[in-house]
Amino acid sequence: MKTIKPICRGQLSFIHPLVTTTAFFFLTILFTTNIMAQEKSQMVRLAKIKVDALQLEKYNAALKEQMTTAIRVEAGVLTYYAVADKKDPTSITILEIYADTAAYNSHITTPHFLKYKATVKNMVTSLELVDVTLIASAKKEGMESSTQ
Amino acid sequence: MKTIKPICRGQLSFIHPLVTTTAFFFLTILFTTNIMAQEKSQMVRLAKIKVDALQLEKYNAALKEQMTTAIRVEAGVLTYYAVADKKDPTSITILEIYADTAAYNSHITTPHFLKYKATVKNMVTSLELVDVTLIASAKKEGMESSTQ
Repeated sequence: MKTIKPICRGQLSFIHPLVTTTAFFFLTILFTTNIMAQEKSQMVRLAKIKVDALQLEKYNAALKEQMTTAIRVEAGVLTYYAVADKKDPTSITILEIYADTAAYNSHITTPHFLKYKATVKNMVTSLELVDVTLIASAKKEGMESSTQ
Repeated sequence: MKTIKPICRGQLSFIHPLVTTTAFFFLTILFTTNIMAQEKSQMVRLAKIKVDALQLEKYNAALKEQMTTAIRVEAGVLTYYAVADKKDPTSITILEIYADTAAYNSHITTPHFLKYKATVKNMVTSLELVDVTLIASAKKEGMESSTQ
């Protein structure tokens, strides 16, 4: 009958530190390349919107609901920032980041997006969509989500 | 000699659940109000920049360095997103969020910001600063920082 020898700690020393370092190096490259590929495929957009002043409050409420729902339920909707010009709060700019074009195409068929579009149809007086590339972003940690 | 009686678990039952609930309620309000006050004081801005096409690469490098340094070393610099128009990459928009006006006023006196301003002086052909208010933002977790 064979006896099973337990593997002792010392026996693992045949894994040369060079092997560990090399493996770590390649895993890091793989991981970084993956992140870069993900970012390269992202769809980033600025939506420039003019809203009827009399319906601004209702518009902002509908916009917030659309944004928070999309971020919560859609995996490919990554980031939204909606800002209003201080001198003219009816001039709104939205920065939108989607995982890729497919995520965006799926987004515009969702019930919450269609509801938003139907709600704001007669509130939006002009809409300009500008496709952009992200040069860079940098943020403090813990700035995930906020509404005012 | 007095004997010290250990406090047993059952003895804490004099803290009525209502007291706990009320304390929790007020703490939540306090916390939420604090967050809202912090957000209300934030300074949010869109910088619209036109860059000399021949110096675009150098400009983008200087911008990235300024952004990442400011986020790393300045407590009051919270968020930057820099995007370039796909049809005209010399048209750049930067979304900037500072903790408050004091944080911004301090930011523009820092060595990294002054270095950026000196570097890009002859690269920027026009600059428009638009003060805005944040209507809402929503993000997936783990989207802290990225450059492309």
